[in-house]
Amino acid sequence: MKAITIKDIAKECGVGVSTVSRAINNHPDISEQTRKRIMEVIKQNNFVPNTTARNLKCIQTETIAVLIKGIDNPFFQSMIKVLEEEIQHRKYTFLLHRVDSNQDELEVALQLIKERKLKGIIFLGGCFSHDEKRLKQIRVPFVLSTISMFKNVDKNIYSSVSVDDINESKKAVDCLCDYGHEKIAILAAQPWDTSISGLRIRGYKKALEERNLPINEKLIRYTLDEENAFTMENGYKLMKELLQSGEEFTAVYAISDSMAIGASKAILESSKKIPEDYSVMGFDGLDICYYYNPSISTIRQPVEDMARETSEILFNLIENNAKNSHRLFEGELVVRQSIGRLNK
Amino acid sequence: MKAITIKDIAKECGVGVSTVSRAINNHPDISEQTRKRIMEVIKQNNFVPNTTARNLKCIQTETIAVLIKGIDNPFFQSMIKVLEEEIQHRKYTFLLHRVDSNQDELEVALQLIKERKLKGIIFLGGCFSHDEKRLKQIRVPFVLSTISMFKNVDKNIYSSVSVDDINESKKAVDCLCDYGHEKIAILAAQPWDTSISGLRIRGYKKALEERNLPINEKLIRYTLDEENAFTMENGYKLMKELLQSGEEFTAVYAISDSMAIGASKAILESSKKIPEDYSVMGFDGLDICYYYNPSISTIRQPVEDMARETSEILFNLIENNAKNSHRLFEGELVVRQSIGRLNK
Repeated sequence: MKAITIKDIAKECGVGVSTVSRAINNHPDISEQTRKRIMEVIKQNNFVPNTTARNLKCIQTETIAVLIKGIDNPFFQSMIKVLEEEIQHRKYTFLLHRVDSNQDELEVALQLIKERKLKGIIFLGGCFSHDEKRLKQIRVPFVLSTISMFKNVDKNIYSSVSVDDINESKKAVDCLCDYGHEKIAILAAQPWDTSISGLRIRGYKKALEERNLPINEKLIRYTLDEENAFTMENGYKLMKELLQSGEEFTAVYAISDSMAIGASKAILESSKKIPEDYSVMGFDGLDICYYYNPSISTIRQPVEDMARETSEILFNLIENNAKNSHRLFEGELVVRQSIGRLNK
Repeated sequence: MKAITIKDIAKECGVGVSTVSRAINNHPDISEQTRKRIMEVIKQNNFVPNTTARNLKCIQTETIAVLIKGIDNPFFQSMIKVLEEEIQHRKYTFLLHRVDSNQDELEVALQLIKERKLKGIIFLGGCFSHDEKRLKQIRVPFVLSTISMFKNVDKNIYSSVSVDDINESKKAVDCLCDYGHEKIAILAAQPWDTSISGLRIRGYKKALEERNLPINEKLIRYTLDEENAFTMENGYKLMKELLQSGEEFTAVYAISDSMAIGASKAILESSKKIPEDYSVMGFDGLDICYYYNPSISTIRQPVEDMARETSEILFNLIENNAKNSHRLFEGELVVRQSIGRLNK
């Protein structure tokens, strides 16, 4: 079978080759009616023009960018998997773009919109505390996923999918309190992280306050460098410092599972036992927490449902011109070997 | 300042608007000389045509696809990070495409080439045992990364970056033998995986044979379903079965770190100790092996160097028309708490 050429298409449509080319390239000098007719013939014939193939392709495939801060956080892996499935399923191109921990995700997004033909953006992870004016600069639909907004930003200008970080965090600390712990340390991100980390600290304080337990600021351990805070490495480092500080505590709550694993390593390395000496609680619901020894308690975020909802909201914004919306998911408290009852 | 229009460009070049459009869209009905001249004027004026902006964009951004089998394998995370940096740095679009464990990566690649404007492909992970004829169907430069080819395929038709799986695997088993172990189990992928898993089993057998140790086929534990073999879940499952089988052994070598972690969980759950009852060895060099309790011995692959070399080879193929090449990296044996000396 001889390959179909642009000439064959032109002949079948009864137009010149340049008209077909115009149709393909979305040129303004062609009526919408003619363009539609030509594109149909092209489609019927499965025609992919040689030299203009790249342009035709570009018209067909539009891009959704997923901007991810902390790409090496395993928490995002199953989310990326679902998002990629959903985006591919809808015939969009899935563009994964890493944002460095010290980069401003809005800057990166604006640059990407300029460079690429983005139909929508999903922001995953990071500290999201931009003000309204800056958020408004993003002129394509976007969803903040697993990110809560802290500041008072008009809810109509963005969409979001997350857990209720304050309440879920409170749940984690409540659990430790229920097991008799009163001196509970928290391993947090940078003090200037007013989104996820800030909210989880609020939940931590709320749990203690409700029980009239004193808040010891020295047990709130912030990350003090610019590095990615949510890692095993950082959890290990913060825990080492805490152990060396001499502060008294019987339980530690890390605001990510990766940090909880690093913290556990630091505890075990100093010849202390989990949970006999220190109870450990994480946050996220990574599989590795089940496999760790001892298995680590956590708040499990329903990541796959959250990823599906993120894509649902985004495509509603893009394809149905829907209004921005916000969806809060509930986390699940998972109690494992890492928590012990404190006998007072 | 008034925005520059396509008409201004046409005027400056002394051609008609449609000629400029043709130049932008790489239309065949225009001489290369004219096209070059027009593109230069466009460049000088920083002109981004309105309606044809999308096409111009497409000309500027070309795509490298990274096809990954086992996207949830943490082993690939740092590789993806480096590849994405390298590809973005060279101003190409980074397209991450997940391949299901039961999908044929070549089919997926051919489909992608058809659909998108790919300049090159990187294959990450999976069982790669396609024959020469099928590999030749891929008409863009590609590199198999962390994948060894098992069958006799002409080395001139593909590029590859990997460790020497046979030798590195032998190194892992040699280490266990040096600690006095003779009855060593291996947790492997499917029997039909003749690439990574097949090669690592060969290294395992080679180590035993050189020491005149008998090979007990019952200690070679294959994955028997279609699922992703290299996971914690699968390591856990295979180890449970092995423990229940009643076969005698004193050490277990899992062909991936994730499997080694799953296996460790199964051992600890059955109230056995590591390394007192069973020594454990993994393969890959994941960070989590350091953080696990006990820390797990492994063969560390230099993933970041391997990722950089992969991108180097690919861009040499694309931009300098280089010949296909093959690069073997050496792994590093890391001995940790999970290995104990066997007193006979």
